[in-house]
Amino acid sequence: MSQKPDVTLETLHKIFTIPESEDSTLGQIEKKISENLLGFLKEHIVSAETTPANLERMFREFKVPEDPVFVSEQAEFLLNNVVSQSVHTASPRFVGHMTSALPYFMLPLSKMMIALNQNLVKIETSKSFTPLERQVIGMVHHLIYGNSTMFYKRHTQDHEVALGTFCSNGTIANITSLWVALNKCFPPRKDFAGVSEDGLHTALQEYEKDGAVILVSQRGHYSLSKAANLLGIGKRNLISIPTDDRNKIQVDVLREQVLRFKQENKAIIAIVGIAGTTETGSVDPLSKIADLCQAEDIHFHVDAAWGGPTLFSSTHRSKLRGIETADSVTFDAHKQLYVPMGAAFAVFRDKGDLACIEHHAEYIIRKGSRDLGRKSLEGSRPGMAMLVHSGFRIIGRRGYEMLIDMGIDKAQLFAKMIQEAPDFELITKPELNILTYRYVPENVQKVLGTASYEEQRRLNDHLNRLTVTIQKEQRDKGKNFVSRTALQPVKYDRKTINVFRVVLANPLTKEKHLLEILDEQRKIARTLMRGESWSKTGT
Amino acid sequence: MSQKPDVTLETLHKIFTIPESEDSTLGQIEKKISENLLGFLKEHIVSAETTPANLERMFREFKVPEDPVFVSEQAEFLLNNVVSQSVHTASPRFVGHMTSALPYFMLPLSKMMIALNQNLVKIETSKSFTPLERQVIGMVHHLIYGNSTMFYKRHTQDHEVALGTFCSNGTIANITSLWVALNKCFPPRKDFAGVSEDGLHTALQEYEKDGAVILVSQRGHYSLSKAANLLGIGKRNLISIPTDDRNKIQVDVLREQVLRFKQENKAIIAIVGIAGTTETGSVDPLSKIADLCQAEDIHFHVDAAWGGPTLFSSTHRSKLRGIETADSVTFDAHKQLYVPMGAAFAVFRDKGDLACIEHHAEYIIRKGSRDLGRKSLEGSRPGMAMLVHSGFRIIGRRGYEMLIDMGIDKAQLFAKMIQEAPDFELITKPELNILTYRYVPENVQKVLGTASYEEQRRLNDHLNRLTVTIQKEQRDKGKNFVSRTALQPVKYDRKTINVFRVVLANPLTKEKHLLEILDEQRKIARTLMRGESWSKTGT
Repeated sequence: MSQKPDVTLETLHKIFTIPESEDSTLGQIEKKISENLLGFLKEHIVSAETTPANLERMFREFKVPEDPVFVSEQAEFLLNNVVSQSVHTASPRFVGHMTSALPYFMLPLSKMMIALNQNLVKIETSKSFTPLERQVIGMVHHLIYGNSTMFYKRHTQDHEVALGTFCSNGTIANITSLWVALNKCFPPRKDFAGVSEDGLHTALQEYEKDGAVILVSQRGHYSLSKAANLLGIGKRNLISIPTDDRNKIQVDVLREQVLRFKQENKAIIAIVGIAGTTETGSVDPLSKIADLCQAEDIHFHVDAAWGGPTLFSSTHRSKLRGIETADSVTFDAHKQLYVPMGAAFAVFRDKGDLACIEHHAEYIIRKGSRDLGRKSLEGSRPGMAMLVHSGFRIIGRRGYEMLIDMGIDKAQLFAKMIQEAPDFELITKPELNILTYRYVPENVQKVLGTASYEEQRRLNDHLNRLTVTIQKEQRDKGKNFVSRTALQPVKYDRKTINVFRVVLANPLTKEKHLLEILDEQRKIARTLMRGESWSKTGT
Repeated sequence: MSQKPDVTLETLHKIFTIPESEDSTLGQIEKKISENLLGFLKEHIVSAETTPANLERMFREFKVPEDPVFVSEQAEFLLNNVVSQSVHTASPRFVGHMTSALPYFMLPLSKMMIALNQNLVKIETSKSFTPLERQVIGMVHHLIYGNSTMFYKRHTQDHEVALGTFCSNGTIANITSLWVALNKCFPPRKDFAGVSEDGLHTALQEYEKDGAVILVSQRGHYSLSKAANLLGIGKRNLISIPTDDRNKIQVDVLREQVLRFKQENKAIIAIVGIAGTTETGSVDPLSKIADLCQAEDIHFHVDAAWGGPTLFSSTHRSKLRGIETADSVTFDAHKQLYVPMGAAFAVFRDKGDLACIEHHAEYIIRKGSRDLGRKSLEGSRPGMAMLVHSGFRIIGRRGYEMLIDMGIDKAQLFAKMIQEAPDFELITKPELNILTYRYVPENVQKVLGTASYEEQRRLNDHLNRLTVTIQKEQRDKGKNFVSRTALQPVKYDRKTINVFRVVLANPLTKEKHLLEILDEQRKIARTLMRGESWSKTGT
């Protein structure tokens, strides 16, 4: 049996005590972890070839162990079973999701953040982190709305107002924004204390409405449906508006729907515009939606979780024109600000809007206090804002601009590579840095364009299965990774087409990696088709 | 002018590239940060004497800087303006909030977690972290419910069920639990698709209910009011039940209220029992509430954000008896599991309960997938579960037991110290490791017990102001920190009394620190009273 540490007051005290020197056991362990991490991060694979079922076997124990193990033993366990069995999200060949490489300086700074273990819910457990968080919220607000210097001088640090709220993720930011929108829709009047006090049922009765809806394009993120569910509106009342052939909301249909719901006496809580759809990176015509919202007095929310940082680019920021008229904006930091997981913002054009979700308690977040928790959905939160602050300072506006421009250029290059290849089909052109495509054998591609409706459908069914299989096989090989999704392209009469989805935000991804991804997919496809009858289109 | 880094593709690439050696500039900076942190953590002060207004001046810039600064410059800035101006939450004299010292091993392991930058919403960006998170959820479930070995062998890693969900904080865990309760209250039937699809308004109509309520004691955490607001129930429909002289819910009043709401045709979404109230650490009579819930078929939620880990203690776990009958439990890891900020659980007795909040998308969290994001309120989340796993293994059940026992013993010792001091008054005795008290000059204490109602009220008004002033002055001095809250003790006819609140969870806090805290408060009080007329009770 291996040696076990004692459980005594002394050993316990030691765990909480700062080690005196670098040569301490913990110092040694830390060094080993760092070296191992460097090795892992430098590797060229995306993930090791172990099946999820095999991994699950290593995490089956369900009792908290009675006796402790040494830190060294746990570190060894993590290095063998967790680090080596992680997904290498920083790999230049991992282009399937929105998680990319981190700037390396984020690591020592994160350790600083964690060692300080501040809680941003209140100033008594965060002190300088509170004004720091207000500052980065102000910076994101300025990036989006660009109000006057006077505005920010007055309000960035004024604890009686709030330009936004820091959130653990974009889902929380979307929920917070729609929560505010709901409150603004049913404010207090006469005997009615407002929807926040009296609830949605009473609010609808008071305002004599036959229900409430939120409108967004069919490409809206699933968190919006979660929000509709959570807020008591109901998922079915998140109305999905069709998109055009560029995956942008059809504003004429949106307008018709708004009129219809008005006639049906429904409260329209918000219209959501998307600045960078999750699956295709498309940007809705924000100015046009804004005009409609203004004319009809509807809360305009923009989900810019992905696309927000495009505003850093002089070349591409015009793609988001109209975002400055949004009442609220979701903006993720752990995506294109290259901050570790767990950082997003909900920002509001009107500095008074967040007051409608204000909460108080006796022991903290008292009225008039500086506590950020007065106006947040969440409770205890870490000091992630420090890492956003560091990104802003160390990368700078010009650095972020270059990252954004590089990603979009690379997506255009990859689109060109796909279009020029005889056996790949580009499904959605990149507007930002996301595109979708699929593998279609050359001979099938020739037939597909001119085939009968029935024949086209039969071929697409085949291709759909092929796309899924290629994506899974490539993922399981562990060298390259693209994700997949399902779209309804106008080109194929809005039938569902499975596609590969690629997100090009990692600055380390080069042309050669993209070539290799296509090559590997081609090889997998050819092997798969050897047993099938693809050339015989008649069967 | 100071030197600025260039913004070129090369410098940008360098930021994202792993440094080759320890002697790199970044290696040097990391070393400096580590040394500085060690220094800070060893210091004996709680916070530096700088006013919030002064701090705010350092964070007034509102534009993302155009040009980048060197990492060294930002590190210097953070060391000077953020680290040194943080609250030393790990100090043994910081006993005012629920944030304590961290085991030092959490730091290198956190760096590992952040470097891997996994996203737990889906297995494609988390791999081994997914079964690891399921494992720690299983461990917490076992700690609370203690089901059979067969149960956990079958279900811990079965992705068709869920024993709970990992959350960024206890607020999210409370909201998630009540969201599930709401869904269970209004399930689909016939033409009704359930509250999640159709919304609360339609649900109440379908089930012919005149509103919905949630019941909790007046000591319930403010996040419950947030949940009532967010879910569309309305804050006013979170019903506050009075507590007895030990700050526990009065079950007879609770029962009366349940009957009243049933007569009024209200849907009772849930009754919330508290295992460790935020302000006094009291535990509700959970078994009695459970009986009521069972008899009336009401969802029983237990908020054990603070008290949950008491279950590790053989001596004290019986205080939570009845928790094993709860339908759902909130359990924080960043409190008494000594994990860094950002880790909590909502666990469910019934492995099928979380299915009612299930969501899907085309590109991830597909039906049948292993993706944890299928059944969570949040979207992208970091791999914090790894730190809970490490705590469980390195501290072990016996280590956590010792920590819990130490805290409760220390609270009892402190209570005794306060009771024996002639000029302090214990307001709430510690049931767990939280207590409240106030400073009352000896001569006032003698009068207070026998004073007329009017006189007692006048004295308490004075004492209330004194308590606030002492707490603020002590906090601003920066050497010791207790928090304050307002209670309505039975002893003082439920009039509001301001009190100091102390949380004794830091294993580094010793008797001498507690003595010093009282001494400093006494000194501040005496100085304050010198100008006042405390001895002349007639004025």
